Amino acid sequence: MLDPQSIPVLINTMTARARATAHALAAAEDAVKARALHAASTALRDQASVILDANAEDVARARDNALSPALIDRLRLDPARLEATAAGVAAVAALTDPVGQVIDRTTRPNGLALSRVRVPIGVIGIVYESRPNVTADAAALCVRSGNAVILRGGSEAVASNRALHAALVEGLVAGGLPADAVQLVPTTDRAAVGAMLAAEGAIDLIIPRGGKSLVARVQAEARVPVLAHLDGVNHVFVHASADPAMARAVVIDAKLRRTGVCGAMETLLIDRAWPHAAALLAALADAGCALRGDAAARALLPAVAPAEASDWDAEYLDAIAAVAVVDGLDGALAHIARHGSHHTDAIVAADERVAERFLAAVDSAIVLWNASTQFADGAEFGLGAEIGIATGRLHARGPVALEGLTTYKWLGRGTGQVRG
Amino acid sequence: MLDPQSIPVLINTMTARARATAHALAAAEDAVKARALHAASTALRDQASVILDANAEDVARARDNALSPALIDRLRLDPARLEATAAGVAAVAALTDPVGQVIDRTTRPNGLALSRVRVPIGVIGIVYESRPNVTADAAALCVRSGNAVILRGGSEAVASNRALHAALVEGLVAGGLPADAVQLVPTTDRAAVGAMLAAEGAIDLIIPRGGKSLVARVQAEARVPVLAHLDGVNHVFVHASADPAMARAVVIDAKLRRTGVCGAMETLLIDRAWPHAAALLAALADAGCALRGDAAARALLPAVAPAEASDWDAEYLDAIAAVAVVDGLDGALAHIARHGSHHTDAIVAADERVAERFLAAVDSAIVLWNASTQFADGAEFGLGAEIGIATGRLHARGPVALEGLTTYKWLGRGTGQVRG
Repeated sequence: MLDPQSIPVLINTMTARARATAHALAAAEDAVKARALHAASTALRDQASVILDANAEDVARARDNALSPALIDRLRLDPARLEATAAGVAAVAALTDPVGQVIDRTTRPNGLALSRVRVPIGVIGIVYESRPNVTADAAALCVRSGNAVILRGGSEAVASNRALHAALVEGLVAGGLPADAVQLVPTTDRAAVGAMLAAEGAIDLIIPRGGKSLVARVQAEARVPVLAHLDGVNHVFVHASADPAMARAVVIDAKLRRTGVCGAMETLLIDRAWPHAAALLAALADAGCALRGDAAARALLPAVAPAEASDWDAEYLDAIAAVAVVDGLDGALAHIARHGSHHTDAIVAADERVAERFLAAVDSAIVLWNASTQFADGAEFGLGAEIGIATGRLHARGPVALEGLTTYKWLGRGTGQVRG
Repeated sequence: MLDPQSIPVLINTMTARARATAHALAAAEDAVKARALHAASTALRDQASVILDANAEDVARARDNALSPALIDRLRLDPARLEATAAGVAAVAALTDPVGQVIDRTTRPNGLALSRVRVPIGVIGIVYESRPNVTADAAALCVRSGNAVILRGGSEAVASNRALHAALVEGLVAGGLPADAVQLVPTTDRAAVGAMLAAEGAIDLIIPRGGKSLVARVQAEARVPVLAHLDGVNHVFVHASADPAMARAVVIDAKLRRTGVCGAMETLLIDRAWPHAAALLAALADAGCALRGDAAARALLPAVAPAEASDWDAEYLDAIAAVAVVDGLDGALAHIARHGSHHTDAIVAADERVAERFLAAVDSAIVLWNASTQFADGAEFGLGAEIGIATGRLHARGPVALEGLTTYKWLGRGTGQVRG
């Protein structure tokens, strides 16, 4: 246990080392970063028994402390999960390097040749909870995009994170990158999070990965910019023109494929003019979904329980859906504008004009037509991976992968131009 | 004077009206926004005498209060300045609408067609000081990019800002936009700024326009994201390979064309191996620039005063330059890494390999080769205008114009895709 007063000093030392390393990482060639991440992936596989032993220690302590089965499941690694983590690092190694990409270029009338070129953000802090795989996932994405990263995982996973971090760094160094590219905060004292959030100018971006309370704490306290992922109160609107089979497939997938993901549907909006509503609700109920609805929804199916006001803003992350019957597109848009969380919303409709109006009017990071909200995922969007789904409006929105971990600079090449 | 307790209520009412209007503005067609801004430009011209009378009132009060001549000059409008402001609004009207632009698109193997489309940020707050032209400039850029804006200008310019705002709104409404598209905070109480900075979720972005103390206050207090413009401690490095005539032209322009702009050179770095250093310093001194140098610089020209440690971090905004003699490119890079403010830095060199290393290694928003740092300007970069030069690393960097006032959303068009 560290002396609490030493924690700001510790974070200060770590950020200084990260900044020094960030300059080297920004200049690192694509092939070096790729090779180093492949080596890190190999190291995770080579050290599987050490990592799994460390994880067993964390899991045993979690059981002794009577942590919830859900938390223990998030904490647990097994050979298959560790292999998936190692494969994920290799997959990130194979992604296209965003650094050095030219966003646009122009030559001014005076001959000055301007271009905008992607560069790393610099020093990124990741604050996360019990999932140890984040240690590898987040480190890989940050390193691939040329950023130095400071990881601060949950106290439950301390042994797992140390073992994963040791393997990753061994691989990165073998591949030719500096060890300080990926640093793990060596204390589980919560004051370390506070010191990271206060490290204005020393950490360029904080990304919280975890539940609502973690993200809320980070947003409330941070002086460093935060790329946050908030609630997904996601809607599927079934328009009067919707094909009943498609509506059923999309709604059941959106709600029930996985109920605990941020892209899951939480509220179903049904157009009052759609004639297949009762069958859709029955299918949802038959598939195991509890329904809470307004009076019109309850009139369609007796199994629908009465919704309370709070249901329209609920992110259940469970096999529960709120159901409202709305008056056409305008009714759906008004409901989403009032209750949506700007994450992912979808319409099922055969009428293209209505669908295009929905796509244009809904102010969410992701708006879908005739597709399940569960596609809200970086890999599904072709980004190769994701560090999170941003629900803010600045810098990056929706699934964030390598591009979102970069910024740009303007380069101007002249021949002696002056403004005069 | 308002009851101080009513200020949060006032700001709350204004942000609610801005949010309601933002939805309409986001959907406004290009032609409507352009027409409304042209009408606003015309209204500024039509109401010139009212605006100039209001400005005369502000100037008289500033004189009575013995404000500095520099501040009174910033405050003063005359027919030429007002005409330039009206012309600026018309020029923004003529810019290409960024809203609806498709950033990229892809079709996934499952047939889901994805695109990223630019949309307005939403509600933008502008906090500024005594220059009344900001009222029109900032309003025009925000409206052109589909954002609702809340303006809070300095107390010195209160009458001018009210007159400018009244004319702008009259024009916007005549052109078909809602009056709440541009709101002016009707009190000069500083608590209104605090209420804006605290309006998390109600204002999406705050842009401070003014001096260091204003920007520092905004950054320190804001819970709303800030697009800030900090110091320009800009360097010109004259490499051993530099052509002496080009170096002289670029350095004199960078330092002396206008000394009060953020793109002005503040520190001159001269390669120890460059044989023309004494003549360059003499030319700078002859042109009226005071020089403060290290021992090597002083040895070149007796008129160079000794630099103190603080000179290397100074943003003079005056006809003063710090001068350091450095050992080649690496010496220049080390100096800039230590003292630069990540705004704009330039190299003068005939050696392209050296120049490209400088462009790659300097971590600034703008890095120039053989061109004056005074090109750091949105209009010079072909953006048509600028709302500021961002020195942060997220969202937008360097000159920020219409694109920087937008975000994007992901649209997905499917045919019933589910993840399954």
